[in-house]
Amino acid sequence: MDLLLHFDDEREAAERLARAAGLFPACIERHRFPDDELRLRLPVDGGGGLPLRVVLFRSLVRPNEKLVELLFAARTARALGARHLTLVAPYLAYMRQDMAFQPGEVVSQRVLGEFLAGLFDAVITVDPHLHRVASLAEAVPTRHAVALSAAPLLADLIASRCTTPVLIGPDDESAQWVGAAATQHGFEHAVCHKRRHGDHDVDIELPPLALTGRAVVLIDDVASSGRTLARAAALLRQAGAASVDVAVTHALFADDALPVIRAAGVGRVWSTDCIAHPTNAVSVAPLLAAALQASARPAA
Amino acid sequence: MDLLLHFDDEREAAERLARAAGLFPACIERHRFPDDELRLRLPVDGGGGLPLRVVLFRSLVRPNEKLVELLFAARTARALGARHLTLVAPYLAYMRQDMAFQPGEVVSQRVLGEFLAGLFDAVITVDPHLHRVASLAEAVPTRHAVALSAAPLLADLIASRCTTPVLIGPDDESAQWVGAAATQHGFEHAVCHKRRHGDHDVDIELPPLALTGRAVVLIDDVASSGRTLARAAALLRQAGAASVDVAVTHALFADDALPVIRAAGVGRVWSTDCIAHPTNAVSVAPLLAAALQASARPAA
Repeated sequence: MDLLLHFDDEREAAERLARAAGLFPACIERHRFPDDELRLRLPVDGGGGLPLRVVLFRSLVRPNEKLVELLFAARTARALGARHLTLVAPYLAYMRQDMAFQPGEVVSQRVLGEFLAGLFDAVITVDPHLHRVASLAEAVPTRHAVALSAAPLLADLIASRCTTPVLIGPDDESAQWVGAAATQHGFEHAVCHKRRHGDHDVDIELPPLALTGRAVVLIDDVASSGRTLARAAALLRQAGAASVDVAVTHALFADDALPVIRAAGVGRVWSTDCIAHPTNAVSVAPLLAAALQASARPAA
Repeated sequence: MDLLLHFDDEREAAERLARAAGLFPACIERHRFPDDELRLRLPVDGGGGLPLRVVLFRSLVRPNEKLVELLFAARTARALGARHLTLVAPYLAYMRQDMAFQPGEVVSQRVLGEFLAGLFDAVITVDPHLHRVASLAEAVPTRHAVALSAAPLLADLIASRCTTPVLIGPDDESAQWVGAAATQHGFEHAVCHKRRHGDHDVDIELPPLALTGRAVVLIDDVASSGRTLARAAALLRQAGAASVDVAVTHALFADDALPVIRAAGVGRVWSTDCIAHPTNAVSVAPLLAAALQASARPAA
């Protein structure tokens, strides 16, 4: 049986995936020294080795220290006998900086993608925030780069909780993704037009739709500062929406994002478990398990 | 003139080195997003490029996030035209875990060394804590791996502040290094014998020396939790030492290390500026500058 390595702070999500995918879950031991250096220990067999196929589970929210852990764990897994290493990162960090907006800027997506491609044979993620690149393989140039979409799962969730909802994406970038979620259940849908002035400062224009009395669900791949969702929710309330709920794949919700969203008139907030959060309402474990099983076949 | 890139939190030390080495210092801009992702921007020339030779200055105390910054900065410096990249890391992290003490343990020194060797053509550091490997090049397999010693600088400092001191190293590992510091000024010297039971739990045995009324200086490459120094200082006081001062290259002093040392009867604490700290009493800038100038010659 293939091994699913994970860290202690993600035990529950990793065990859900292990059950769904038929993998053996095992925790990487982690000790922090007083100077913040880490000592990791991989769970090895009686002979001190690892199986040929190893999956490493790590959702890359607040990613910096976790990237150092990935470096340590992946290099050591190879040294201990793993031949095929897969990273399952339900949330993949640094995908938004995909070009240099000013001369000298680091294109973080490219550097991080090459870093991960150097460590892993396969990378599986959910709804990476790709904008100017067409596929995950362009951002993470590894043999198997798999970007799954949680849009169908969120659409099913919304269908079970709302009657004839309108799905609204907060910006133009989300159009295709919102469309995919809506089509499945025949939901009405549209996107806002957005202009960003800073991390916490955004302008929003609602789509030209009759919203009076409607149950609106704001749907997006990621909620970070929450300012875009809050601004959209406030405008939707002003436009007469009967309710505004929020459904996102990645519940980053930095700092005061959630109270800010609630204060803007949002009712229910749903997310997937790509990032562990109290709003988690649907698990991506079956989605990830299917992708792992598909990716295991050709190389078996 | 070659460029010395640095980060805003190390501006002073970087500018000292730039002056000593005749380099042009320039700060890497750093923006932190609400979700902890970083956006770096390298200072480029009018054409958007960098010179052929670039030095990156980064002391790797509390190293994890800084290693991600090094990855971003080094890869981008190459993309912007730098051909020869030198890392000056006055303090180099992860040098202590140089073997797997238990099956499955990450040999952090090796993984980190290979990571840095993949990013830089040259790595210059001061007093890396090498134990079972003979040279820095074994730990950091890059073309130019230079380990400087601050022992002579600390010896000069001690000579200017103490009359006929005894230099004591806190453990057997420090013997050679303490000897190097002592020989230069003909100081009497010896080392303690140490057994470690945990991060904060150490046993110490004093060397068989007559210490009554003597001015003792405890000298070491690094002070982290401070427990070893504190235990040694207390024993030295019990053995009748007139004064116990401390001189270290790397002032890590995690958490309550400094108060713990002072409570054990330590008077003065001196360190180099390898790690910025209120105890800094001597600068390694001239030492680093000489090494940079020497390493620039063969490749010029």
